[in-house]
Amino acid sequence: MKVAVDAMGGDHAPKEIILGVNKALADMPDLEVLIYGDQEKIAPLLEKNSRVKIIHTNEKILGTDEPVRAVRKKKKASMVMMAQAVADGEVDACVSAGNTGALMAAGLFVVGRIPGIQRPALAPTLPTVDGRGFVMLDLGANADAKPEHLLQYALMGSIYAEKVREISEPRVGLLNIGTEEKKGNDLTKEAYQLLKQQENIHFIGNVEARDLLNGVADVVVTDGFTGNMVLKTIEGTALSVFSMMKAALTSSMKAKLGAGLLKGELYQLKEKMDYTEYGGAGLFGLKAPVIKAHGSSNATAFYNALKQAYMMAEAGVARKIAESANDIALEKQ
Amino acid sequence: MKVAVDAMGGDHAPKEIILGVNKALADMPDLEVLIYGDQEKIAPLLEKNSRVKIIHTNEKILGTDEPVRAVRKKKKASMVMMAQAVADGEVDACVSAGNTGALMAAGLFVVGRIPGIQRPALAPTLPTVDGRGFVMLDLGANADAKPEHLLQYALMGSIYAEKVREISEPRVGLLNIGTEEKKGNDLTKEAYQLLKQQENIHFIGNVEARDLLNGVADVVVTDGFTGNMVLKTIEGTALSVFSMMKAALTSSMKAKLGAGLLKGELYQLKEKMDYTEYGGAGLFGLKAPVIKAHGSSNATAFYNALKQAYMMAEAGVARKIAESANDIALEKQ
Repeated sequence: MKVAVDAMGGDHAPKEIILGVNKALADMPDLEVLIYGDQEKIAPLLEKNSRVKIIHTNEKILGTDEPVRAVRKKKKASMVMMAQAVADGEVDACVSAGNTGALMAAGLFVVGRIPGIQRPALAPTLPTVDGRGFVMLDLGANADAKPEHLLQYALMGSIYAEKVREISEPRVGLLNIGTEEKKGNDLTKEAYQLLKQQENIHFIGNVEARDLLNGVADVVVTDGFTGNMVLKTIEGTALSVFSMMKAALTSSMKAKLGAGLLKGELYQLKEKMDYTEYGGAGLFGLKAPVIKAHGSSNATAFYNALKQAYMMAEAGVARKIAESANDIALEKQ
Repeated sequence: MKVAVDAMGGDHAPKEIILGVNKALADMPDLEVLIYGDQEKIAPLLEKNSRVKIIHTNEKILGTDEPVRAVRKKKKASMVMMAQAVADGEVDACVSAGNTGALMAAGLFVVGRIPGIQRPALAPTLPTVDGRGFVMLDLGANADAKPEHLLQYALMGSIYAEKVREISEPRVGLLNIGTEEKKGNDLTKEAYQLLKQQENIHFIGNVEARDLLNGVADVVVTDGFTGNMVLKTIEGTALSVFSMMKAALTSSMKAKLGAGLLKGELYQLKEKMDYTEYGGAGLFGLKAPVIKAHGSSNATAFYNALKQAYMMAEAGVARKIAESANDIALEKQ
């Protein structure tokens, strides 16, 4: 399995990216990697291995670049060259920790959509209290969505959960503001009817945001605006609670003493909420796996994202999504 | 100022409701209260006072009742009679801790909308880390919204923040998935343009969900679907973090010892996240203040909701909203 890597994207690039690649090469004997980026910076960090090659380029896409424009203009950027390698069939998948919008644009314009899939979706695996996690999509590839897009998200998420996360009959939930069938806005009410009729997925009905972290479903579908909003609300609330906790734990001598005794437990608590453990966010609906590693990825997080790309390619997720899109199109006729 | 109270709604009715009324009567010398509900259950709890009167009824709306139907059929329910007292001009405002949907229906069909206001909005004050809080609307009175509804929410929220919360030039933010003007879905992009042009409000642009608890704005506007989703996500995440914290704090002998030393601080932390301290949720856009106290209200929470109704009536919020709706209508001509 061949995977292309953008060495220049992310807050800790290229160092943590390359350390993640080293680990992946050591762990996966049939993995081959093409690394795109600055040879001079990459080479000293990279462990010698016959299964890895650096393709040098000086250009890169910045976090502040306007996504679509950057992908169109910077043809020699490490991220764009990486996507081109997928389009040319040189590799089976690709991974970047760079500019999310630019990676979505590169996925859409360079790698290309699966025929029949109307909108790609950004799909991270989010943590649950029990450590099992769930796939949620779309988290912001498209702000607005139609009911049939949510149906396609459900199919793509289901295939991923089954083939890569190895969950048989993954439970698919529709994110909504109530569990009853009639609840919600126009979009969720119509999507509910479409999902209910679809036999290829195990639809369990509406799920509420407050139950997400308790693992109420294996796949949660929503429009990109709502998904992005919920993700940021979870992050913001967790950070606020942790910062208030920190203030409380240092507010007095007695509290500091108590906090000292709890250090290990509190650290574990923060770790549990760390979704980089679950890999990156997949861009589902493209002709080959494109994985967005978290911008602040360390070596472990990038390793997990790379492994995810490898597993998606190996399981043939893109092919299965294409077949499934085709089946639905046939049903409609 | 006269306020009507539904004694039979909420998890701890009528006891905590009546204890809240007792406290309000003691604190506010010019408050008069009409209490609707079961005389036999209410009378033993109520402190003698010439400014309070019980209007007996046996009927009540249950939490499980279908809202619109219940309001139409149960004309003698304590909540419906309370709303009727507002409509008849017997009282200046009303408060219930009962079925939220039913209270919205009673507000809409019995109390009635302010002419010119297209949609009422559910508007609680939510907590911030600094304890200042912010008003957010709509939190679910209407799942779908149009850009002009968001503009009206902004005006109503602004008037409330200024007149009741006594914040001069309250900062109004549009809840969105990015701070840049062009971010968001069709709704937020169009609403941004409307809000930008409106001179009566202090519009500060888009605000992100992750910054809400840090007090990024005094008034936050959004459609009811997104608002409800974000509120439940905040609740769910905070509860999950607290439950994981609890598990961590009792996981070992050493941890339990540390937790014991931190008891006071951890309790304060939970208190800080308790939004019943800020009163109930106002139903803005109705001819008189209708306040939804939290379903699990204790005496203090109900007292705060009652005080809020009193303050809204005293400040003439409904009249000011009517004037402002009228001004916008004139501007358009």
